[in-house]
Amino acid sequence: MASSSSLTLSQAIFSPSLPRHGSSSSSSPSLSFSTFSGLKSTPFTSSHRRILPSTTVTKQQFTVRASAAVETLEKTDAAIVEKSVNTIRFLAIDAVEKANSGHPGLPMGCAPMGHILYDEVMKYNPKNPYWFNRDRFVLSAGHGCMLQYALLHLAGYDSVQEDDLKSFRQWGSRIPGHPENFETPGVEVTTGPLGQGIANAVGLAVAEKHLAARFNKPDAEIVDHYTYVILGDGCQMEGISNEVCSLAGHWGLGKLIAFYDDNHISIDGDTEIAFTEDVSARFESLGWHVIWVKNGNTGYDEIRAAIKEAKAVKDKPTMIKITTTIGFGSPNKANSYSVHGSALGAKEVEATRNNLGWPYEPFHVPEDVKSHWSRHTPEGAALETEWNAKFAEYEKKYAEEAADLKSIITGELPAGWEKALPTYTPESPADATRNLSQQNLNALAKVLPGFLGGSADLASSNMTLLKMFGDFQKNTPEERNLRFGVREHGMGAICNGIALHSPGLIPYCATFFVFTDYMRGAMRISALSEAGVIYVMTHDSIGLGEDGPTHQPIEHLASFRAMPNILMFRPADGNETAGAYKVAVLKRKTPSILALSRQKLPQLAGTSIEGAAKGGYIVSDNSSGNKPDVILIGTGSELEIAVKAAEELKKEGKTVRVVSFVCWELYDEQSAEYKESVLPSSVTARVSIEAGSTFGWQKFVGDKGKAIGIDRFGASAPADKIYKEFGITAEAVVAAAKQVS
Amino acid sequence: MASSSSLTLSQAIFSPSLPRHGSSSSSSPSLSFSTFSGLKSTPFTSSHRRILPSTTVTKQQFTVRASAAVETLEKTDAAIVEKSVNTIRFLAIDAVEKANSGHPGLPMGCAPMGHILYDEVMKYNPKNPYWFNRDRFVLSAGHGCMLQYALLHLAGYDSVQEDDLKSFRQWGSRIPGHPENFETPGVEVTTGPLGQGIANAVGLAVAEKHLAARFNKPDAEIVDHYTYVILGDGCQMEGISNEVCSLAGHWGLGKLIAFYDDNHISIDGDTEIAFTEDVSARFESLGWHVIWVKNGNTGYDEIRAAIKEAKAVKDKPTMIKITTTIGFGSPNKANSYSVHGSALGAKEVEATRNNLGWPYEPFHVPEDVKSHWSRHTPEGAALETEWNAKFAEYEKKYAEEAADLKSIITGELPAGWEKALPTYTPESPADATRNLSQQNLNALAKVLPGFLGGSADLASSNMTLLKMFGDFQKNTPEERNLRFGVREHGMGAICNGIALHSPGLIPYCATFFVFTDYMRGAMRISALSEAGVIYVMTHDSIGLGEDGPTHQPIEHLASFRAMPNILMFRPADGNETAGAYKVAVLKRKTPSILALSRQKLPQLAGTSIEGAAKGGYIVSDNSSGNKPDVILIGTGSELEIAVKAAEELKKEGKTVRVVSFVCWELYDEQSAEYKESVLPSSVTARVSIEAGSTFGWQKFVGDKGKAIGIDRFGASAPADKIYKEFGITAEAVVAAAKQVS
Repeated sequence: MASSSSLTLSQAIFSPSLPRHGSSSSSSPSLSFSTFSGLKSTPFTSSHRRILPSTTVTKQQFTVRASAAVETLEKTDAAIVEKSVNTIRFLAIDAVEKANSGHPGLPMGCAPMGHILYDEVMKYNPKNPYWFNRDRFVLSAGHGCMLQYALLHLAGYDSVQEDDLKSFRQWGSRIPGHPENFETPGVEVTTGPLGQGIANAVGLAVAEKHLAARFNKPDAEIVDHYTYVILGDGCQMEGISNEVCSLAGHWGLGKLIAFYDDNHISIDGDTEIAFTEDVSARFESLGWHVIWVKNGNTGYDEIRAAIKEAKAVKDKPTMIKITTTIGFGSPNKANSYSVHGSALGAKEVEATRNNLGWPYEPFHVPEDVKSHWSRHTPEGAALETEWNAKFAEYEKKYAEEAADLKSIITGELPAGWEKALPTYTPESPADATRNLSQQNLNALAKVLPGFLGGSADLASSNMTLLKMFGDFQKNTPEERNLRFGVREHGMGAICNGIALHSPGLIPYCATFFVFTDYMRGAMRISALSEAGVIYVMTHDSIGLGEDGPTHQPIEHLASFRAMPNILMFRPADGNETAGAYKVAVLKRKTPSILALSRQKLPQLAGTSIEGAAKGGYIVSDNSSGNKPDVILIGTGSELEIAVKAAEELKKEGKTVRVVSFVCWELYDEQSAEYKESVLPSSVTARVSIEAGSTFGWQKFVGDKGKAIGIDRFGASAPADKIYKEFGITAEAVVAAAKQVS
Repeated sequence: MASSSSLTLSQAIFSPSLPRHGSSSSSSPSLSFSTFSGLKSTPFTSSHRRILPSTTVTKQQFTVRASAAVETLEKTDAAIVEKSVNTIRFLAIDAVEKANSGHPGLPMGCAPMGHILYDEVMKYNPKNPYWFNRDRFVLSAGHGCMLQYALLHLAGYDSVQEDDLKSFRQWGSRIPGHPENFETPGVEVTTGPLGQGIANAVGLAVAEKHLAARFNKPDAEIVDHYTYVILGDGCQMEGISNEVCSLAGHWGLGKLIAFYDDNHISIDGDTEIAFTEDVSARFESLGWHVIWVKNGNTGYDEIRAAIKEAKAVKDKPTMIKITTTIGFGSPNKANSYSVHGSALGAKEVEATRNNLGWPYEPFHVPEDVKSHWSRHTPEGAALETEWNAKFAEYEKKYAEEAADLKSIITGELPAGWEKALPTYTPESPADATRNLSQQNLNALAKVLPGFLGGSADLASSNMTLLKMFGDFQKNTPEERNLRFGVREHGMGAICNGIALHSPGLIPYCATFFVFTDYMRGAMRISALSEAGVIYVMTHDSIGLGEDGPTHQPIEHLASFRAMPNILMFRPADGNETAGAYKVAVLKRKTPSILALSRQKLPQLAGTSIEGAAKGGYIVSDNSSGNKPDVILIGTGSELEIAVKAAEELKKEGKTVRVVSFVCWELYDEQSAEYKESVLPSSVTARVSIEAGSTFGWQKFVGDKGKAIGIDRFGASAPADKIYKEFGITAEAVVAAAKQVS
């Protein structure tokens, strides 16, 4: 068998369709392609990748339907395709069987589309999974991860070798139970929690559209790749997927191509029990182009034609609804929930081997399949080399743009960027930290080429508009203000996609702090998948006043302090806000949350960017010898209260230290020595004040200290009144300080 | 002006439409109603409520469109309607103006539909807001709460009097900044966080459909009311609303009628910037009946006709898209975001008064408007009286059903229900607490008439099926297993609606514990709005094993322990699971979360329902005098580890107390004396072990104790291996115990 049996596309178009195992479609070439396509999105042709010449395409020409089409993007001998597809199926079956854990059903059903994507359609370099201009693939139905691992293995990625397949879901394995970008190079994002992947894919496509619009030139299409995603019924049911697909339609993300694995089975059985909506009609209402491939099990040409059609529709994202059989090939378990999430069992594995005519040992990749896939290594290297040459040309002609793009690609921040951060003195005007945040955002956008973001319909409340830029919209994708609408969960997950597209893309997103409850699923994935998203969360306490308890965060600070790998900042004034932004920008593998006030706060003496970057630091102290009578600890808007209480106590002759705890996680990272210098163990008289749950504060105030906070829901009233009624006052701090010291 | 100028419906149908202020619709009576309606949903006629005779209705007869219809459900003199509508507008304007805070735009735009609902359509008794068979109204766009407060005021609810309107959004007011059921009788649920209200409304409609199917008899339609909801563009963008509307369509909730206030404005400006989908087409794809009222500002008859049409469609929920002008009447601010969320300002209030011809002082309700609305007090009382008589009849004929329904209506639990809870001895077989939970769920469903619930497509993993019941579906709504699909957020909010429908409805819902991140918005509203939902959350730690860190909760226990008014249970075995359920059922105003294991756990000696109900209690102790050498504290699956470690330490001659901390919140409620008996202050040698974040544990282990836990993300591997690698072992407890004692 030849290692590259591709026909040229022009041949393929006019050849009759090749015989296919089990195909039920009757297809004949009956379409004219005289005005068709222009895959201007595929500018590099390697010896095995032939494309049609680029021509202008208008919308109404795309009447070709998948079921009637026969052209192939890349036609290979049908037998090797079938064999490759079965290899994918059995690698999944075998790995799940060995682990006695996992989800064989999806890989068995989706192997055909997976094969076509990785073998025929996608541009990638297996030896450099991070090559910038690669096509992105997201398995939103992450439980089917063995599909992606099998594909990465066949494609030649070093991250998934035979030993890895044999250690699926085991301690120390490089291929965990769901796709994790931080474990497996070649995996773009972290999926498993349903709906996250399609949202990430929207973010990846936003990044591509934005960068292409900003950096491409008439003579240099330097940014040009697709985002492919497979999602299942579970993803479709999740609200987040409707949020992001509504945005994808609104933004006209033409290079986003989603495969909806329509297999009618979810964990509880047939989707009929809970999911009877018309998904295709819904996507049309959201502004998507929709194609239905009725035979996703063996209809290879239909799949190819659908992808071709999808690529040709440039002003809309495309959903290819592709009807498959979950567990295809398993004679007794296919098309049932029993094949979704458990190993088939030795007997059924055997039956499936017989049914699909698969005589090989577990984990075996037949030589002809290996040989067939082996071309992707040189091809991928060639693609990258060509792109590098193209980029070198680009750099010569467009030095400034190239420098910006390079910074985005590498994640290397422009020298001296941090000098743009504003600083403040106690004489600077009092202001809400949400306003101070906006000063920082606008300062950073001037110096960081990859800085972009927006709000969930609260830009004017969150103060997140970048004043020098317009809105990222369908026809102005070069702009940097994203308008997410009231879609918090989708917003967070889209930002994860943007952040993971390129190391130098630094997305921020915003809503009221209390509505992190709506987006916590995405925020946890930011933390887990090392996506350095900046969460700008205003209206951070009862200080927002009249909107009342539905809008007033109480437990939110504690809830994020307990979450791994996320920085929870609560800055007290301008300097601390700038300090929080400095760290947030630097920490590209750790997301940051900034809890910001709606109400005005004074610029305090003793605050600093450097202090804030340590997480906890001394703001003022009138003692000597590291032994004050009492330590008062505040965060955010309550640091002012601690300072006022300290003034009172000093008047009474006490020595008082005021400590700002702007970010617990950063403080935890400091040396024991530093910590002892801030919170000496000998001083047990400690009082903390924070307009939020006291949960967790005992860690810093200790057994003998006192935490002042709010362990009930808020109330609807002017902010000052609530503070007073809830006892978040300097008087309460003074009283507590006397009690504990 | 007459206090009741209603025409009979038969008159109204054949009268020409009355002149209306500013109406732009040209409507003429051109429809035949010979086979129409049958408002069998309005069985009680008072002197002012006339209805058409009930006839059989078939689907194809409902071709009447709102724009063409002129019939009214309840026709009153047009001038008084207009005056009433303007009263609503100005009550909202004046209250927001006085508070200098709030959202006047929605009430000004939605006053016409609000008027028609409360004055002409809805059944309620203002003097008993809790009358069981009332129609339910939900303002999903909760920021527009002044609309609802104005309506409750006019309708005669004692909860909203003139003084209340004047104290809008002030400390101690009965009418807070967003609608809160626990503050304002007449408000059914708590809204403000967008999308929650429409989801609650789906829950209310589920409750009605279920109870009607279970309790109605051919000769006694004892359960029969509608759920009305107003939602805006913001609600529509939220993913949760798509989740629940997909379910509402699937379930065919014909008595759910949603008004989509299509005003094209959200906080960031025109909805065009982020929301260009075709909402009506989306709802049709979800299985809804959709009607468009093009003139929601003055098209009263169109609104009436739409409601009539909606009521006639019995197999689908209806969305009435009703195009309005936000801030209608304000000459300079209408139709702009500036009228959304701030007071108009004195000058614009004046201009609006002039524009709408409103000569009255702030907060004035004209006498004729007052007089017009005054009929609702006697009418409402009559409705309830009639229903009570009907129920008395029902009780005579159907004693058993009546007893069940009474329990649901009153919330009084059947005597001795708690005897149904299973108990266990150390000899009972080891089992996963998710399985033990299922035993409890099935035991409770037998004795609690209002117990129902389900899972977000994980019934077979969460073990939540009630075996003696079938599925609640469109055509089997009398059943009690709810199939939510993969829609966690919607599930939680639907359960809030069910719980708040009737005190004796006890909904439970289930998913993996980690996916509380998807539904936290709804869970917080459970806690705030005192909806006693039971959250059955399985796969509660790294103990789930191979699915890996995306599925392994770490910070979730801490994050809920920090939330007010919610009980976070982590039972260790069968007795503790039963104890958790006992409390969860009893606490009707506090939601409960049960974190349950996937893996088998032994039945431990010393555990009990009574102990669990105290939150923290001694499981074993070989010391005397309340002074053990060391106290080991465990929860859930780690209590077993604490017990094993204690055995080791005892072998070495130590006195050891083992304490189970199944629910921190319940422990906090115990007396100081009890707490001292469990955790004596003199014993500082304390070690806690829990397979989750250590955040917050210092509260119980103290400065000198040690908390063993997991402060990183999990890993994909068999559970035993992860426990060992993460140091969640008896050996680690023994070592720590030696270190601290």
